[in-house]
Amino acid sequence: MTMELHCFGESGNAYKAALALELSGLDWEPVFVDFFGGAARSDNFRALNVMGEAPVLVDGDVTLTQSGVIQHYVTEKTGKFGGATQDEAREVLRWVLWDNHKLSSQAGMTRFLMNFLPEDKRPAEVIGFMQGRLKAAYGTLDAHLAGRDWIVGDGVTNADLSCCGYLFYPEPFGFDRAEWANIDRWLSNIEGLPGWKHPYDLMPGSPADRA
Amino acid sequence: MTMELHCFGESGNAYKAALALELSGLDWEPVFVDFFGGAARSDNFRALNVMGEAPVLVDGDVTLTQSGVIQHYVTEKTGKFGGATQDEAREVLRWVLWDNHKLSSQAGMTRFLMNFLPEDKRPAEVIGFMQGRLKAAYGTLDAHLAGRDWIVGDGVTNADLSCCGYLFYPEPFGFDRAEWANIDRWLSNIEGLPGWKHPYDLMPGSPADRA
Repeated sequence: MTMELHCFGESGNAYKAALALELSGLDWEPVFVDFFGGAARSDNFRALNVMGEAPVLVDGDVTLTQSGVIQHYVTEKTGKFGGATQDEAREVLRWVLWDNHKLSSQAGMTRFLMNFLPEDKRPAEVIGFMQGRLKAAYGTLDAHLAGRDWIVGDGVTNADLSCCGYLFYPEPFGFDRAEWANIDRWLSNIEGLPGWKHPYDLMPGSPADRA
Repeated sequence: MTMELHCFGESGNAYKAALALELSGLDWEPVFVDFFGGAARSDNFRALNVMGEAPVLVDGDVTLTQSGVIQHYVTEKTGKFGGATQDEAREVLRWVLWDNHKLSSQAGMTRFLMNFLPEDKRPAEVIGFMQGRLKAAYGTLDAHLAGRDWIVGDGVTNADLSCCGYLFYPEPFGFDRAEWANIDRWLSNIEGLPGWKHPYDLMPGSPADRA
C-alpha cells in the first residue's frame, strides 16, 4: 500500500518528511491538508494528531507524526539517512533536536508571522526578537558547516533534511543564504541530490493558490 | 569512570538529562556551567559544544549534547525510559521532538525573559505572545494525558522526562499546574518516582546563589 503523507506546501516541517520519503525512493503520495482553511484545527484532524500539526504519515496500521519520527521511520525501512555508525546516529539526532528547538521552530513561526498573517496583525516586536534568535541559529549552523559538505559524516542524513526545512522558501523571514557562505554551499549540495525538489514542487498547496 | 554532566540548576534542558541519569541509577556527577557568568559563550565551551548550550555529557571519549541525545544514551546503556516496543519508541521520540519544538523551547525562553533579564529589558509583547503559544502547548499535553498516567505506555519514559523539564520550577512564566488537571496529576506521578529530585536539588546553581 502506498504511504500517505498529510502535508501542505507551505509547511517546512512537512517538507522535511516529504523530502526524506522522496529521496529514499519509497512509494508515497501527498494528501493535502488545507491548513489555511482551518483543517488542522478540525476534530477529524485532531483525532489523527492531538498535536494539531502536519505532517502525519499513514502507512497501513501505522500512523506517525513529527517530521523527525517520520524521517526515522524512513531510515528504519531503507537504512538511509540515519548515519553510518552509532556515533553518527547520535550526531544526527543531535542536529534534528537542535533544528526542532532553535532553527525550524523559530524560522517557521517567523515566516508565518511575516507572510501569512494580515499585515495589520503582524507583531513587530515578536518578529524582531525572533529574527535575532534566528541569526544566532544561522551562525551556529554556518560555523559547524565550515569545511563540511554535510552536517554529519560524508553524506546526506536526516540532520540535513531537517535543518534545511525552511531554508528554500522564497517568502522573507530574515534569512538570506548569500550572507552565510557555508550554509549556502551546503544548501546547493542538497539541491544537487538526485530527485531533489523544491517544497512547492514536492507538496500540494502554495501561496500562489490563494493569490 | 564517572560520567560528567555539564549543567546548571536553572536549565530545564539540563534537568531533562540530569533526571534521566539520576533515575536510571547510572554513576554521574554534575559539572557546574556558570551560564549567568557567560561561561556558555566562552571559547572553551564552544569548543565543547558549537551550539553554545548546556547540557553536555562527557563519558570518557564520548561527548554528547542535546538533552534528548543524552536521554537516548541513558536508554542505550540501561534499557530504561525508551518505551517497551518499537511503536512506543517512536511515540517517545514523537513527544521528545514536540517538547523541543513547542514546550520546553518556549517555556525556557519565556521563563528567562520574565525572570532572568533586568526588569527594564523584558519584552512585554514577546512574553505575551509566547504565553499564548505555551497555553496551546499545555492544552495539547493536558488533552493527551486524559486517562493516562504517563505520556507513552505504562511507565515513565524519556517523553515524560523531557516534557516535565521546565514544569517544576518556581519562577513564574505563565504556567500554573493547578489549571491543568491532567498535567498536575502526571507531574505528581513523576515527583513520586523513587529518587526524584527537584532541579535545584539535582544540579548546582540556582537564583538563590545570585540573590
